[in-house]
This record gives sequence, C-alpha cells and structure tokens, in this order.
Amino acid sequence: MSAMIIDRIKRIQPLDQGAAAQARSHIDQLTKPPGSLGRLEELAIQLAAMTGNPIPEVTPPGTLVFAGDHGIVAEGVSAFPQEVTAQMVYNFVRGGAAINVFSRQIGALLRVVDVGVAADLETEGVWNQKVRYGTANFLRENAMAREEAHQCVQVGIEAAESIIAEGARLLIIGEMGIGNTTASSAMLAALTGADAEEVVGRGTGITDQAWRQKVDVVKQALAARKPDLSDPFDVLEKVGGLEIGAMAGAVLSAAAQRIPVLVDGFISTVAALLAVRLCPDTRHYLIVGHHSVEPGHAYALRLLDKQPLLDLQLRLGEGSGAAVAFPIVEASTRMVREMATFTSAGVTGTP
Amino acid sequence: MSAMIIDRIKRIQPLDQGAAAQARSHIDQLTKPPGSLGRLEELAIQLAAMTGNPIPEVTPPGTLVFAGDHGIVAEGVSAFPQEVTAQMVYNFVRGGAAINVFSRQIGALLRVVDVGVAADLETEGVWNQKVRYGTANFLRENAMAREEAHQCVQVGIEAAESIIAEGARLLIIGEMGIGNTTASSAMLAALTGADAEEVVGRGTGITDQAWRQKVDVVKQALAARKPDLSDPFDVLEKVGGLEIGAMAGAVLSAAAQRIPVLVDGFISTVAALLAVRLCPDTRHYLIVGHHSVEPGHAYALRLLDKQPLLDLQLRLGEGSGAAVAFPIVEASTRMVREMATFTSAGVTGTP
Repeated sequence: MSAMIIDRIKRIQPLDQGAAAQARSHIDQLTKPPGSLGRLEELAIQLAAMTGNPIPEVTPPGTLVFAGDHGIVAEGVSAFPQEVTAQMVYNFVRGGAAINVFSRQIGALLRVVDVGVAADLETEGVWNQKVRYGTANFLRENAMAREEAHQCVQVGIEAAESIIAEGARLLIIGEMGIGNTTASSAMLAALTGADAEEVVGRGTGITDQAWRQKVDVVKQALAARKPDLSDPFDVLEKVGGLEIGAMAGAVLSAAAQRIPVLVDGFISTVAALLAVRLCPDTRHYLIVGHHSVEPGHAYALRLLDKQPLLDLQLRLGEGSGAAVAFPIVEASTRMVREMATFTSAGVTGTP
Repeated sequence: MSAMIIDRIKRIQPLDQGAAAQARSHIDQLTKPPGSLGRLEELAIQLAAMTGNPIPEVTPPGTLVFAGDHGIVAEGVSAFPQEVTAQMVYNFVRGGAAINVFSRQIGALLRVVDVGVAADLETEGVWNQKVRYGTANFLRENAMAREEAHQCVQVGIEAAESIIAEGARLLIIGEMGIGNTTASSAMLAALTGADAEEVVGRGTGITDQAWRQKVDVVKQALAARKPDLSDPFDVLEKVGGLEIGAMAGAVLSAAAQRIPVLVDGFISTVAALLAVRLCPDTRHYLIVGHHSVEPGHAYALRLLDKQPLLDLQLRLGEGSGAAVAFPIVEASTRMVREMATFTSAGVTGTP
C-alpha cells in the first residue's frame, strides 16, 4: 500500500461514545414520547458518535460520482454499450441525470471524477484523475495493475478530502460505469467466497439468458484470476473497477475525518466493504441509504450488518438512492437541534 | 350528512388515466434504465393521475394538525395526562414540536386547528374551530352528538380548503390528542369488525397491564355503544374523535380538489379509512408516508391496499412521519421535471 493509504487508515478512530451518550440524553428530553421517533433517534445518536458532536451537522452533503469503464463488457454482460459511460458523464456535467436532480434537491455539492473512462472527455466539468482507459477484460487478464489499484484508491481519498475541504459534512458516494455490476459481483464473490449465482443480478436490465452469461463470466473469471480473499488489493487488481476502488478510498478518507458516509446501492456497498476489509473501524462511519433490487446488495449488507433507510426498489446507482435517503438523515439532526424539551416547552413528561 | 359534505363527496373524481399514461411515456425516455427508479416512477405516475398533470407539482406542501381531547382518558388508557394536548398545541405555536421541525425542513405551510381541545387556548397561532371541549367518555356514553360528528368533518373540509387556497399542492394530515390511539382503535374495530387485540397498541408507550386495560375498554365500549359498521358517521359519533373526524374531512376536501394527501401513521390512516368509507374514490388520492409501530396501522393499510414509503419505527403522530416521507414524493416530481431524456442528452438508449 502507498504511504497515503496507510496514513488515512491509521487515522480512523472508534466511535465517540461520550458524544453518543450526550445525544441520547438530550433526545430523551425532547417533546415526544421516549423512543417514538424510532430510527431517527438511533440515527442522530450514531451521527453524534461518528462526528464526536452531540448536536451533529450533515449539511451541506457532498456527492462524489466516480466514473470508469470495464473491459468485461466485451463479454456481453450489460444491456448498454460502453459509450454510455462517457455520454452519462456529459449528462452529469449538464445537470440532467438523476443524481444531479436529487443532489440539487438536497443542496449537495456535486463533483464528478473521471478515474477511468475509456475515452478522453472534452469538458471542464469533470475532475480528470484518469488512472487508465477502463479496466482490462478480467476474464482474460487482471483488471488493472497493482499500482493502478493503489492509484484509484488514492484518487478517491483526494476527491473526498477536496469536497470535505469545500464544506461537505456528509459524503454521498456514487458511480457511473457500464459493466460495473459485473465487477462488483466478482469482487463480492472474491471477498466472501459467495457463489456467483447469489451475487449476480440484472444490472441495468438484462434478459435471463444474459444473466446466465454474466454468472458464467464471473465464475470463469474467478477461476482464472484466483483473487486472494484475504487481500482487498489483490481483489481490486484482479477483478475490480477503477471507480469502485476510488469509492473505497473516499470512504476511508471520510472515516479518517469523522465524516459520515451515506452509501448508495450495490456497487457503492461493495466499495464500502472493500474499505472495511482494509480497516474494520470504517464500518462505524457508514449509513446505507437504500436497499437495491440487486441480489448482491442484500448479501453485502448482511456482512456489514447494516439496515438501509429506504426500500424503494431502486437500481440506478450514481448515488441516487443515497441522495433520496439524505433528507431522513437531515431530519434526525434537525430533531436534535430544533425540537423543544419538555422543560423548555412546559409540557408534562412521562411519569 | 350536511350539504357541504355531500357536495364535496360528489366532486371526487376517478383518476386521470390520460395524464398517468403521458407521465409514464415521458419517464421511460429519461436517462436511466427503464424502471430503475422503482417506486419513484410509480409515485410520479400516481401523482399525475391524481392531479391530472403529467408533470405534477407537490410544493409547497401544507400540513394541517388537528387537536382534540378524548373523554376516554378517564379509563387510564394513556401514558400522558390530558393536559398535554393543550400544552403540545402551545408547543406547535412556538415551533418546538417534531412536526414544526420537519415542516420547516420541507418548506411546508403549517396550520394548527383546535377542533376539540378540552381547554380554552389563549393564543392567536391556532385556528379556533372548537366543536366541543373534548369527546365524552365513550365507555359511558356516545363520544359526541351526530351533529357534532358532521361539524368536525366540516372543520376539516374548511381547513383543507383554506390551506389549499393559500397554495398547498399536497396535504399532510396530522393530529394531537391524548387518548386518540384508543379512539382510533375503537373506530377501526367498529368499521371492520376486527378484534380489539388486533388493533390496540401501546400508543405513546403504556405497560403490558395498561395495554390489557386499553383492550378491555375498547371491547366494552364497542359492546355498549354498538356502532353500525356500515355507517361511518355512526362510528364517529359513538367511539370517534373530533380531530379524527376533521382529518377525514380534510382528506375528502383534498380529494375533491385533486390534491394528493400524504397520510401519516395509525390515527391519520383510520381517518383516511373513514373518508374512503364515505367515498371509495378518495382512496386514489392517498399516499401513505410511513409504517407505524402501532399494530392497527398494518391492519388499516391492508384494507386500503396501500404500501407506506418509509418504515422507520416511528409512532409519534402529529403528521411527523408524513413530513419525513415528503422529500421522496418531491424527488419523484423533480425526476419528471428536471431529468434529461436520452434524446436531449445524446445518450444511447436500450436496444
């Protein structure tokens, strides 16, 4: 690992239980029956523990969308052609994608990072941190070199540091990359030993036949590449994605700065799992926005022991589900900051 | 029924299937895999059908909180004393309750209506439409007179008309009334023939023993009052609540004006069920914000065939869960209005 990655991992601390206890005590005095705001109360206490602030702040959030291409699309695993990755990046720049719309709604800072699109992007609206022009086809060869695996994680670390320096108090991680559910499924199977059938889904919407093909590709690739379950960088190098490595880096960086991370769907959860494998305490800084339709998502969530906030049958990615979930996180912090207490409001509490 | 109530019921129309089809067709052209925004897509289509507008608008929302007291509290059914209803109304006026906080977050208009608090409220921040000083103890006598049942529904109609005239494009209905889960449970059992055990919960947080007492009170009251399952006004008169009748009126009024209603938890869902019993087409104008911890809520939702947007273990009332769910509804409308199409963005669609 590079010095930068090692340094950030070293900075990741356990939760602040003192701040959590202070938050809990305050929440119990607010004008509502104790516990009646359910998960909003739990969330606020978690956020206090993450940030070390009993009155946590999450606005403005910052959305990072990492884009990268996947050589594995040559095997017919996606409903969309590779050129859509670059086309969608232009759509992000012009503000017309779902993540733009939902980021505007929640007042998020939004930055798009090219960590591995297989084309030169002619626009100033994208942060160019291209590590390579897409991954190699990991059915035939390693997805990337070991050095490139380190580089893409570093891109994520730097992107998170940049948006946090600009003021983001919570990080939403999203991605764009045609073929990236295949890479995520392969990574998840590699990290856990799961069967391909359990963790391969329909991505953007493939047929039964294409799903079977996708399962076979993942199985054959794992047999050919033999990624080492105990070494996250080996998994990233052999069957990973550049944007997935970058998301893992962003998660590490946020955790190192006590900034809560709102994870999106399947791909970002696999990235979060990669980060947790690099540093287990990272897990404490994760909130999962929604439950994706992708079957691998439920599998990854069980490993992380996380319960998503929403279940709206989403499967878009880009960070869209996390952005839609953000107002719930915001509501929990407003509850703490703005609600009156029984004493201040002159309301009779429970006996 | 009064002429006002009959008139509003007559105005309630079926859904606009043409607007729904237009919305669906547009949504399928947006830059995302078809169907990948799941329930957000369904919601947007429903809103188009409700409002008759293929590009529906829901901002600003309007929150109506109806307050009323319950004579049944004399039977020891609540964890909080009756005086808390009035104290919480003052808290609403000063902006310190959960519904104030969440209404501010979503930019909602908020109006508090006294339809039956058992005290004179000395504040200008409340719309005084008191029908009576709380209901009677319905274990001993009818909760209210038939004329009062009509009056409280009319209060709700007028309150909804007023906030819609002020600009509300979606209605959130909430309530405050110590004892009102008992009245709601009795109403739900009366309207459906359910056993008291199935529909009585712990409200603001009572003990096992108090829960048993609450079940017995509901059973005995139903045996004594004998409400007519086929007559919603008989149910309201005999075991209802003034604020619950008002919420039902607000629902009818919104539906008559093609304004979507975002229902909160158990009590507001029982009110919505009362409205649906008065006019079945009302059902089409309902979106349920969250799944309450109260067991009667699931029962009522099955009857209405509605799936809530959130499940956050809330049980506060006031409209709080609906307000927390509102950003999801807003996101669905922003998706329609703001996302680019495949053609406009130059993105290659599915084959």
